[in-house]
Amino acid sequence: MSLIVQKFGGSSVADAESIKRVAKRVAETRRAGHDVVVVVSAMGDTTDELLDLAAEVTPVPPARELDILLSSGERISMALLAMAVGQLGIDARAYSGTQAGMQTDSHHGRARIVDVNPERLREALDEGAVAIVAGFQGFNVGSGDATTLGRGGSDTTAVALAAALEADVCEIYTDVDGIFTTDPRVAPLARKIDRITSEEMLEMAAAGAKVLYIRAVEYARRHGVTLHVRSSFNNNEGTIVTTPKDGETVEEPVIAGVASDLSEAKITVVGVPDIPGKAAQIFTLLAAHNVNIDMIVQNVSVAATGRTDISFTLPKLDGERALTGLNEQQSSIGFDSLQYDDQIGKLALVGAGMRSNAGVSATLFTALHEAGINIEMISTSEIRISVVTRADNLAEAVRVVHTAYGLDGDDVAKVHGGTGR
Amino acid sequence: MSLIVQKFGGSSVADAESIKRVAKRVAETRRAGHDVVVVVSAMGDTTDELLDLAAEVTPVPPARELDILLSSGERISMALLAMAVGQLGIDARAYSGTQAGMQTDSHHGRARIVDVNPERLREALDEGAVAIVAGFQGFNVGSGDATTLGRGGSDTTAVALAAALEADVCEIYTDVDGIFTTDPRVAPLARKIDRITSEEMLEMAAAGAKVLYIRAVEYARRHGVTLHVRSSFNNNEGTIVTTPKDGETVEEPVIAGVASDLSEAKITVVGVPDIPGKAAQIFTLLAAHNVNIDMIVQNVSVAATGRTDISFTLPKLDGERALTGLNEQQSSIGFDSLQYDDQIGKLALVGAGMRSNAGVSATLFTALHEAGINIEMISTSEIRISVVTRADNLAEAVRVVHTAYGLDGDDVAKVHGGTGR
Repeated sequence: MSLIVQKFGGSSVADAESIKRVAKRVAETRRAGHDVVVVVSAMGDTTDELLDLAAEVTPVPPARELDILLSSGERISMALLAMAVGQLGIDARAYSGTQAGMQTDSHHGRARIVDVNPERLREALDEGAVAIVAGFQGFNVGSGDATTLGRGGSDTTAVALAAALEADVCEIYTDVDGIFTTDPRVAPLARKIDRITSEEMLEMAAAGAKVLYIRAVEYARRHGVTLHVRSSFNNNEGTIVTTPKDGETVEEPVIAGVASDLSEAKITVVGVPDIPGKAAQIFTLLAAHNVNIDMIVQNVSVAATGRTDISFTLPKLDGERALTGLNEQQSSIGFDSLQYDDQIGKLALVGAGMRSNAGVSATLFTALHEAGINIEMISTSEIRISVVTRADNLAEAVRVVHTAYGLDGDDVAKVHGGTGR
Repeated sequence: MSLIVQKFGGSSVADAESIKRVAKRVAETRRAGHDVVVVVSAMGDTTDELLDLAAEVTPVPPARELDILLSSGERISMALLAMAVGQLGIDARAYSGTQAGMQTDSHHGRARIVDVNPERLREALDEGAVAIVAGFQGFNVGSGDATTLGRGGSDTTAVALAAALEADVCEIYTDVDGIFTTDPRVAPLARKIDRITSEEMLEMAAAGAKVLYIRAVEYARRHGVTLHVRSSFNNNEGTIVTTPKDGETVEEPVIAGVASDLSEAKITVVGVPDIPGKAAQIFTLLAAHNVNIDMIVQNVSVAATGRTDISFTLPKLDGERALTGLNEQQSSIGFDSLQYDDQIGKLALVGAGMRSNAGVSATLFTALHEAGINIEMISTSEIRISVVTRADNLAEAVRVVHTAYGLDGDDVAKVHGGTGR
């Protein structure tokens, strides 16, 4: 008998029919003899509808009241799911984030978990009941007020409960079959990954793979929680995300997958005086404007002018803020001009095996060269190589790289829609 | 400076526009220098929509989970109202039933308040903030789980908070101008009552007046809370409901008002053996079937047969249950047959002055006689006289009685729609 945490996103509980389908799966797991804790998001578009209501009432909703408003969405879905599971003859009890002991700090809207005391869940499990918990929410340990955890909050709730309860596995249900070697909508021969390390998963997520939120993977990695990302539409095995303990050696494929991302833009700061401290000045300024920098490349200085160009990528959403911030300080930094390019694509090759395998990057560059695709920027980490191409070359780049590393499956992958929060 | 509790029903906060209108009134009250606690119901039809969702998932929702589900409705409205009041520059904070200290017993769906500890509300008031509280809900003092108070729950929340905070007045906002001498839809010359005692109000409510729930009036009476029932659509004074202290004499009009009710039916048990204990047997049986009995009349026994007829009125909703229960026990009780009549109307004349004024009933009977309206049943309490007529005579009966007691106003009353929960 195992203790299993199951997380279902908003699209899995969008209406009464979906809730009944999820209930059936929960009941099956319980009937198989396992202890079960379920984490649910709000139904379908509930969160967006509540945000719209708030916007109708006030342009800038106070954070505390916004959290009360948003957290009510999960209270609805958890109560309905508990009813649906109960209807199948299984004792099921619903718990809010507060009741589940999800203690957070006071940062409404993006609260961090400070501790988890799932005593009431343990009691329920001891009495043979399934515990249904509202995802995405906790309570401010100082005031007792409801808080929300921000993007990916329900995944984080599930992982945090799995860690606190020492669950055997945390199952993340989604509308795809698991983690793929690359986005199946881009490369139809993408293959489902059976096992991947949390370290690789982090790099994949950071490079644009959308199935799991970085924050939840980080939490799982830190607490050694095993994740199982799988489809809520079938009973197939999905992808197991593990965290090998220090010193533990795992037989890993050299390359785990190829991530791609079209959501970034590139800014080039042209003609920066090539004197110490200028790069620091630029990126301190950008950090102060809350701009999320990804890759940075500094060209070789042109000796005649004593000036250089610095390029970096950032989310398109941060573009305007970055440009405004830089322009305000143009004279102080002393650059000539700014170039903004939102037609770039980013490809990242991820694999823990890179560490011990020399020459991995050569295959990448050769494949792109043979396909006539120009590389505009390169950056590497210990287990990742990222390159920037033209946006309209990205899909082709992903396909040729995926093939070059022998990742192609035998069949065309089935593709579903988006994922919940 | 006073402490004012304001209660707004579901129709007053049905959408963002209505919420902003309510917020404006709350802000005005605060700006006038008063301490303000606001109690809100769920928005418009939210509660019914949540009940529908539950019904889609399971035919018999577990009471604990149903309360979690339903109580989320008020969490939404309280958060939105706090945002809207905040938007007007007034510090406003939302509190759930739990946070407001509404301790109840464990009877989910119809919990009774056992104690109220509004410490957080007091803190908010001390800091100059308006406290916005979710109506209709509390928490099981044993388990900490959310409970709901049943029909009229938000009125009860408001009155209970007013009592615990020793508020100067509890304002119940509705879509009519106050309590009327009778239903303005029945008698257009109905007059708004300026002041009424809680005792009279209880009799009016018991006799079918819908504006206030009996339970809230009872709570107000027990704790000496002054109610002010008024319209959320204008600033007119409404009806003040007071509870004179023991020994306090109040100059009261003889008749406060005329209530009417078309929601009841009459059952006659024909040919009951006229021996001791038969009435007790019948009404014990009906109580066991949860049938709410109002008026009871037993006819004179027919000497030749040794049998009598017993008639009583009950809510039409209880009719089938009562008939089934009686028929099952026909041989044990020994009656001949049952007659069911759902075409009756009930008129009740209410007035604390009846105590000290003899002959009040004569005017009633004369007025009905002159109008050619037959009286089928009569029952009286200390401050109320109720009569049953044919349903299609009820409106006319109300009008002639209203006129006979000099209650008619000079103008035709304005009529709005229904009320919130």
